[in-house]
Order: sequence, then structure tokens, then C-alpha cells
Amino acid sequence: MLPKLYPVPGLRLGTARAGIKAPDRRDLVVVSLVEGSTCAAVFTRNAFCAAPVTLARQHLAAAAPRYLLVNTGNANAGTGEQGLRDARRCCDALAATTGCEAEEILPFSTGVIGQPLPVAKIEQGIPAACTNLSDDGWLDAAHAILTTDTVPKGASHRLEIDGHTVTITGIAKGSGMICPDMATMLAFIATDATIDGDVLQACLDSAVERSFNRITVDGDTSTNDACVLVATGHSSLPRIRDTGEYYTRLAAAIGGICVELAQAIVRDGEGATKFVTVAVEQGADCDECLRVAYTIAHSPLVKTALFASDPNWGRILAAVGRSGVSGLDLQGVNIFLDDVCIIHGGEPATEYTEADGLAVMERDAFTIRVVLGRGDFFERIWTCDLSYDYVRINAEYRT
Amino acid sequence: MLPKLYPVPGLRLGTARAGIKAPDRRDLVVVSLVEGSTCAAVFTRNAFCAAPVTLARQHLAAAAPRYLLVNTGNANAGTGEQGLRDARRCCDALAATTGCEAEEILPFSTGVIGQPLPVAKIEQGIPAACTNLSDDGWLDAAHAILTTDTVPKGASHRLEIDGHTVTITGIAKGSGMICPDMATMLAFIATDATIDGDVLQACLDSAVERSFNRITVDGDTSTNDACVLVATGHSSLPRIRDTGEYYTRLAAAIGGICVELAQAIVRDGEGATKFVTVAVEQGADCDECLRVAYTIAHSPLVKTALFASDPNWGRILAAVGRSGVSGLDLQGVNIFLDDVCIIHGGEPATEYTEADGLAVMERDAFTIRVVLGRGDFFERIWTCDLSYDYVRINAEYRT
Repeated sequence: MLPKLYPVPGLRLGTARAGIKAPDRRDLVVVSLVEGSTCAAVFTRNAFCAAPVTLARQHLAAAAPRYLLVNTGNANAGTGEQGLRDARRCCDALAATTGCEAEEILPFSTGVIGQPLPVAKIEQGIPAACTNLSDDGWLDAAHAILTTDTVPKGASHRLEIDGHTVTITGIAKGSGMICPDMATMLAFIATDATIDGDVLQACLDSAVERSFNRITVDGDTSTNDACVLVATGHSSLPRIRDTGEYYTRLAAAIGGICVELAQAIVRDGEGATKFVTVAVEQGADCDECLRVAYTIAHSPLVKTALFASDPNWGRILAAVGRSGVSGLDLQGVNIFLDDVCIIHGGEPATEYTEADGLAVMERDAFTIRVVLGRGDFFERIWTCDLSYDYVRINAEYRT
Repeated sequence: MLPKLYPVPGLRLGTARAGIKAPDRRDLVVVSLVEGSTCAAVFTRNAFCAAPVTLARQHLAAAAPRYLLVNTGNANAGTGEQGLRDARRCCDALAATTGCEAEEILPFSTGVIGQPLPVAKIEQGIPAACTNLSDDGWLDAAHAILTTDTVPKGASHRLEIDGHTVTITGIAKGSGMICPDMATMLAFIATDATIDGDVLQACLDSAVERSFNRITVDGDTSTNDACVLVATGHSSLPRIRDTGEYYTRLAAAIGGICVELAQAIVRDGEGATKFVTVAVEQGADCDECLRVAYTIAHSPLVKTALFASDPNWGRILAAVGRSGVSGLDLQGVNIFLDDVCIIHGGEPATEYTEADGLAVMERDAFTIRVVLGRGDFFERIWTCDLSYDYVRINAEYRT
């Protein structure tokens, strides 16, 4: 159930049914940012990034954004020079409708890769989306950016800072091709706080690193990942120029929104039936903690065991063993399923019983905890299982 | 259909039904090596290697092997100190039956991880296996080492070198948890040539690197991988002491056997319906070629598209893009499905049609060829698709 999404003063959202892939579903979003807004963004590091990602990077460097333009149903990725021309034409159409410059628009696309963007449909849909711009448009927009997602994803907080009310609301989409690298599939987050652009970017980088960059559904990093954070400046809270107390409180709240959205993506992972936290503790550095965590989370054998609720911990052990941590001393390794110890000192825990393991694995959500016994570093990521439905969804995706 | 497996003079194989996991199937193999045989081996690099792997390494360093002892149904992995004691007891039992030293025995186990080895059953089965030792036992042994495999895997060559007949025969098992790192699941290869131990090891290292270390089913490196090459010295071919002409010819033949066995493992990959070669050309070094190849071969999205015969080449493109090749110039990248060019200079090939792509993807076997346009290096690996049956097999494995 989606929580209530509070409007963010200074930001309005409009949607339309442009018929991009399927008829009669919301598939186009226009977001209007009030003049004076600041905007931060992170994008995929996939070398084959999509045309809209390339163009959004250019526009962000050139001008302060006034509009976001988002379509689902077609990723405009792997489309070469034609893709760039198509993305520009869409921005031109929105610029003509709204009277802004094309460079003040950030374009985003998600959907099937490698097919030409149906520009004419988007051009036709833009005026409709602009006529229903509203600060209450978050929920419709959350629906309009979905692809294989089964539920819309949103998070919203209101907090008081020194008597000033600040709102933060965000939406995201993503279900497959999820292993973000410095960004998620698509996430749009806004606050009415007033924040300098470079401080806002630092805030987003930090939040993304601990949220969207800590989830994986299938290990595939998308060509279209993008995450945008907008600050409209309509709250009465004084301008945040540096990393003082106001920043700390706001950044914590934005970080919380990002974690909520990231976790929602994993919970709605393609075919997912389980939400699994992989926590790796006592590593010699963060890198090796992440390496162990992702090796477990990407193992098809672990993921199918999760699906089957089978406490086949040998597969977890094998994943830890092949993760490439140099000089790993097995005698220092402990492994837990929630609070059930399965491996103690590198050996099967004497008190462990299959019934205990099964009781944990049958839960909808649980934690695989690996204690390396090598140092003080810690990392945590979120993932899901690999089910028949993952295969079905991705074998049938284009049919 | 398994090819004829020629006996290797000096080597005999016996099997038994020990009831280790399932009743009434061959699950125990004893291989007898004539005195004077040399023996080379490579093992898994998984840090959590199984007890028999640890013990086999110790025994190999201590004495010239006279027997191999192999069981399926239980991997004796993740079993700690008890697992080592169990593996030793099995060697002791075979030593008592045959009159050799326990250190002259190399133990191998494959099957479920993390359950105690049923030593008593193996002790009871050993005398039966020893009574039917025969140089014609290869086919029975090929059956007796299988786990989730659906077909036995073997390869056999006879060649003439300077008028001397030399035989090479090998068997292998493996279907899931297949991403060998310096070894395969289990492979046993023998020749009657006479070869010094260090030369034999070099020959095996080289052969494994181009065969078992170039396959992946699911990216999971087993705890039990092991590959053994025996030279019995019963051929009339003069002793091979160095890497001269005899070595070159024999090594090529052994390399061919290893490729045949490795490919047989991929063809019988769990749930596999397609045999796919991933070739990466014109890389700046071998490492980046392998990185691109494995990123494609491990992508669940690529693998499900292979299963669906869907020429969804955007997923291949996305995998190349996220593979982490630094400074990749997309304009130099060409991608082919067999001879059909899908990406030319980083853009969709103008002449490409979906029908052409589909025609390739519907084949049982085909090649994904990525040309990076950066250098002169080349790598090739073999993989399979990800199907419903992979999920079924691994969700139901222990039930």
C-alpha cells in the first residue's frame, strides 16, 4: 500500500496516455519546477547509456531545469544518433508548449531497449500532460513511469526543523535490470527546502550511495538509470548553503526516502517472493564487504534456494568462498539466518537444526548475515529471490 | 550420444551402488592407477573448498597416487573438521581393501553441500567397486559421478605419434554450480603416454585454462571442482620430459579432450536449451575480453532472452556497457549474432532486421560475437540459457 504522497510546494506533475507501448495507460509525465529551484541528478555508469541520459547530462550542465519529461514503454537506448535526435525533438515539443528553452528540460525514458522512440505519440501527449499539471499529481506520475513493476512506488515525509515545515516526496520505478551503479532505474524526489545546487548534489550522492546503490534484483545495470532530486525553495526554512545542522537533518530525511524507494524496488523485483537483506560485518574494508554481499545476492543458486525457502546454506558458504576476498580465514567466519547461527568458526554450528533454518527462510523478509572476523567495516544490501516468474517475465517481455 | 571411450592401458575403473543419496544407482567409483603412473590435478579456488579437496591436495603432495576414490550424492563440503575425518576414513577403507597407503589415494566428492558424508555406506561399497575394476569401466564410471546431470560425459581419442599409438580418455560431470576457477566440477582424464609429473601438470594447467575455465552455467564456482590427468606410461611412445614435439602433439590432443568435456557440461547445463559461444575480439588485453564475455554470459536478462529465442540485443548491449571496460569507445564496437551484424560502430546496424536476428536465436547453438575495436586480444567462452527448468531443478534440489 502506497503511503500518502504530500505535495511539494513549487512542483507540479501532469500525466497523459500517449499510447507509447500499450494503449490507454498513463505513460507520459511532465514535471514542472518553479523558477529558482535547484536540481541534482545521478545517472547510470553503463557505457551504453541511453540517449535521454546523454541529453539530460548536457542540459543539466547548461541550464537550471524547469521541466522533467518522462516516458515509459520505450527506453530510447541503443538507438544511436537517431535516438539523440528523437530525445531532442521531445524536448523541443515541450519547450514549444511551455515557452521554456529546450535546455531547461531533462528527458528520461524507460522501457524496451533498441527500438526507435515513437516521437509523434509523445509530441501529441505533451499538451495533455501539461493541461493537468497539479501539485497533487504524484500518484498518477508514480503509475505513469512503471514498466514491469506491479505496484507504484512512493515515499513522503514531513518534518519540522526549527518550527519550519519541510516536505520531501519521491517516486521510483524499477523491477528488473536492477543493479544500479551510482543511480537507480528512475527516481524523482523533491523537497520544498531551499538548498544550494552543490550542497543538493552532495546530499543526493550520499543518499543514493546508501540506498539505490545497495540493491540488486538481477545484477544487470540498466542503460537508463537516473535519479533526480529537486529543491523548490518554497519552504520557510532558511536557505541551506553548507553542511550544518539543517543540512544534517534534511539529508537524513532524504536518505530515508531513498531507502524506502530502493527497498520498494526490491520488494517489487521481477518475480520476487522474498525480501532479503544481506549484511556483511567485520570486513577489512568496505569493498570486500560489498564483494561478499553481492556474490551472495547474485548467486542463482542462492536465489533459487531463497525462492524454495530451502535453508541450503552450503550455497551461501560457496558464494562467500568464491567471492575473492584475499586471505580469508575460514575459522573467523560466522554466518546467520536472522538470529539463527548456521556457521560458527567456519564450521557448521553445533546447535543448528534444519527446522531452525527453515523457520527463517519461510519468512517473507529476513537477513543473511555474514561475519568475516577480519576488521571493523560493514555493508548491507537488499535483494530478492529468483523464481519461475522472473524467467517468465523476461522470456516474454517483448511478446 | 557418448562417443566410444577407449580403454587406457594401465588404468582400471570399478563402480558400486553404495546408496549414498538414492538407492540402487551407481554412486561410487574406484580408479586404479598402475605403479609408475604420474598424476596432475587442479582444484577449485573457492576458499570454502570441500574436505576431499583439502585431503587430495595433501595426498598429492605426499605420495604418487595409486587410486582415485569418487562418490556422488554428497559433496562433503561445509562439513568442517568432521568432514576431513570422514574423508580420511574413506581413504583408510580403500587402503585396507587394496593394501596401499592412505596417502596414495585421492578422494573426490560431489553432491549436496553441508550434510555429513555417509561413511559407513561408502566403506561398504568400496569392496564391491574393487571387485569389478576393469579397463573397460569408463562408461559406468561416467554414470556413477553424475548429480543433476542428465547425460554422462566422456571423450576419447587415439592418435599415432611416430608410429606409437597413444590413447587419451576422459570423463566429467557438472551441470549446475558451474563457473570453474582453475578446475571444473569433476573431470578425470587419462593417457597411456609416459610423462614426467611437472610436464604433465603444465599440460593440464594449459588445457584447463582453455576449456573448463572458459565455461559458465550460472556463475557459481563450486566448492568441489577438481580435474585430474593421469599418465600410466603403458604406451610405447618414449617418455616425454619436456615441451618438445611429442609434448606439443599430445598436449593438443589432451586440450581437445578437455574442450569436448567442458562443452558437454555446458550442453547439459541445468535446464539448458541453448549452447551459446560468447566470443570477444579486438580487446586491449585478455582480461577485458573475458570480463565482457562473462558479463554477457552471466546476465540473467541475456540468459532469459536466449531461452526465449528473443533477439533482444539491447540486453547484450547493456551487458557490454556495464562490464567495466575502462574508456570503451562505443563507436568502435560491433556486435554479431553468428554472421548477422546487429550493432555497427556502436549503433544499430542499418541492414539488421528482427527476422535475421530471430533466425539465429532459434538455433540450438550460435555465437554472440563482440568486436571491441581496441586491440588484438581475443577470448571465447561457452554458456547456456536460463530456463524455468534451471529454477525448478535448483528450487527442488534437496526435496
